[in-house]
Amino acid sequence: MFTSRFNKGRGKRQNEKKLAKPTNDSIALHKKARGKIEIKSKVPVKNRHDLSLAYTPGVAKVSEAIAKDGRLAYDLTSKWNTIAVVSDGTAVLGLGDIGPLGAIPVMEGKAILFKEFGGVDAIPICLATKDTEEIIKTVKNISPSFGGINLEDISAPRCFEIEERLKNELDIPVLHDDQHGTAIVVLAGLINALKVVGKKAANVKVVINGAGAAGIAVSKILLSYGIKNLVLLDSKGIISRGRKDINKYKLDIISRSTAANQDGTLENAMIGADIFVGVSKGNLVTEKMIKSMNKKPIIFAMANPTPEILPPLALAAGAEVAASGRSDFPNQINNVLAFPGLFRGALDARAKEITEAMELTAAKAIAALVKKPTRNKIIPGPFEKGVAKAVAAAVKKLAR
Amino acid sequence: MFTSRFNKGRGKRQNEKKLAKPTNDSIALHKKARGKIEIKSKVPVKNRHDLSLAYTPGVAKVSEAIAKDGRLAYDLTSKWNTIAVVSDGTAVLGLGDIGPLGAIPVMEGKAILFKEFGGVDAIPICLATKDTEEIIKTVKNISPSFGGINLEDISAPRCFEIEERLKNELDIPVLHDDQHGTAIVVLAGLINALKVVGKKAANVKVVINGAGAAGIAVSKILLSYGIKNLVLLDSKGIISRGRKDINKYKLDIISRSTAANQDGTLENAMIGADIFVGVSKGNLVTEKMIKSMNKKPIIFAMANPTPEILPPLALAAGAEVAASGRSDFPNQINNVLAFPGLFRGALDARAKEITEAMELTAAKAIAALVKKPTRNKIIPGPFEKGVAKAVAAAVKKLAR
Repeated sequence: MFTSRFNKGRGKRQNEKKLAKPTNDSIALHKKARGKIEIKSKVPVKNRHDLSLAYTPGVAKVSEAIAKDGRLAYDLTSKWNTIAVVSDGTAVLGLGDIGPLGAIPVMEGKAILFKEFGGVDAIPICLATKDTEEIIKTVKNISPSFGGINLEDISAPRCFEIEERLKNELDIPVLHDDQHGTAIVVLAGLINALKVVGKKAANVKVVINGAGAAGIAVSKILLSYGIKNLVLLDSKGIISRGRKDINKYKLDIISRSTAANQDGTLENAMIGADIFVGVSKGNLVTEKMIKSMNKKPIIFAMANPTPEILPPLALAAGAEVAASGRSDFPNQINNVLAFPGLFRGALDARAKEITEAMELTAAKAIAALVKKPTRNKIIPGPFEKGVAKAVAAAVKKLAR
Repeated sequence: MFTSRFNKGRGKRQNEKKLAKPTNDSIALHKKARGKIEIKSKVPVKNRHDLSLAYTPGVAKVSEAIAKDGRLAYDLTSKWNTIAVVSDGTAVLGLGDIGPLGAIPVMEGKAILFKEFGGVDAIPICLATKDTEEIIKTVKNISPSFGGINLEDISAPRCFEIEERLKNELDIPVLHDDQHGTAIVVLAGLINALKVVGKKAANVKVVINGAGAAGIAVSKILLSYGIKNLVLLDSKGIISRGRKDINKYKLDIISRSTAANQDGTLENAMIGADIFVGVSKGNLVTEKMIKSMNKKPIIFAMANPTPEILPPLALAAGAEVAASGRSDFPNQINNVLAFPGLFRGALDARAKEITEAMELTAAKAIAALVKKPTRNKIIPGPFEKGVAKAVAAAVKKLAR
């Protein structure tokens, strides 16, 4: 299944040309298929006998059994394997707030990835509201038919409260993939990148540029993994204790870091850093910044489709390891390595929630799949076999 | 596809034995399949190239196009063909308020019928609320990803307000199938039953026993079709103008009927009636009642699984035509004749609502499929080919 043709090193212009074409082909594909998902019956419905079993009168017995013991819904309906992919369309890819209709193609894309990689049946639910309370209420109201909730492309800081509240108020796994999917795969990549450069998590300085959903979650998981010196920046610069304009999520991160309290720009932050993680905007990192970093710097430039710095430029400036979200360079940091297996494991364990411990386990499981990490191979490719399976097994084991 | 083995005349005991078994087989079927529906991708996702078209980066172009012109969601996503099957689990089959989990098997059954008969992708959404306003709000909030809403098994009278409000407040078709699906198929059967007995709609007296979702909707469609003399009963007896305990929906029906204002029981109502339609409870109609009706009486005994009177008993008591909801007697009144084609037509026409005119058209289209109605054949069987297609064509034509 894994085709390496998109994985070879090629010149920059050729790559950009290659990326441009799919966007047009993509419209054509969507037009021809008229959407990417459909419903399929798992049972025959070809005659009255079939109907009497799958529907009335037979189904009454099934409904009655579940009414008596709700847990049977996991054995007798599709709940055990069905999740809702919920978005309000406020933070879709790099496009921002494009509304719920514009979000549908992305959620359908997510749904087919869930199925292809994790065997999970995912249903796109795009919401006609951006109100935090209404989103929470709506998701709770539709939750009975679902075994889990994947929140997607909801803008920060609302996404934090929505996820937190739903985690507390529902007894099925809830995950905001933009936060935790990204965080897991970044950590997986960094575990191996640290091996490549021969450094320890406890001793490195990490700069995280971007304090939205992904930036906060990446910061959290790195701190939990053992990173101590972490500098977080938002669009106004370094988040210092003196700043009055920062929300509680940003404050939480910097209060867990040992980094010196400092104001300043990205340029200031990068001096002496070992690792840069960008979840911000394209072309923000210069060669000069990389040259100001510590020896053997690691660059994760994950803005999409244009990274903070293109990996070849980062390497040319002295980076030892460079990763990005792009499929046309080595070391693609792609959420698809995490979310299908994470939900597969949580659903199989019938876990009531997805915990940080499960996320750490998932990251380690992904990292462990690369037996001998090198600067060009710190993370499995998205189509490498067995990734979701390994993640699911690790998560399921921990959950039980 | 149509198997007639369940359609032959057989003794009562044998039939009931036959019906008893599927309920046990049904549990086994549901257990084995672990639910009846799954998601399937309509596009390939086997390599990076596929991924770049169906998901990032290509999908961004698709999302952007829809963000600019929302109507493109019908061309580029599955919205055009996807409906939500929404229930709060308060009136599930004959089981009553069994809750949202218990409702899932029925909604999944509905979903596979939608697909099999109408090619419609239907998603079960079972709600954790029974509150009218919350249900309305929730359905509105999740509506962007759907091309239509099928309300199901929501108890009266809340179902009337929920449907009415959603019809007004959404610009996609909304239908409460328990009301209108049933009404359409009853009317279809009655059109042909009247031919069999040689009576005209304008001249007959109709007794409708049951004033819940189905009873109100059947009454409405019959009055709109041309029935004038209609007596409606609820669990307390005939609904007369004098009664203080009746809701506005019941009042609306009796104010449209020319029937004499009368209190009394079902026994009183049946005297001289031409047609009995039961959407109530089993075994309420006696042979004596049928003997008190006008010549050539028509009996539609649709309580499920035990009809108001078993068709063979009704015929033995003098009924000229007997119909029920059961598959083991002739003349099965089954919603599946209506809802798949009705939604197929509405979705294909991209209708903003399903109107009463569409429902009348659908009923006539179903009736017209029986070229020569007889007392044993007033309605197509649920697996006869071409029913949904004929309904869809009629509805689509009218909608456009």
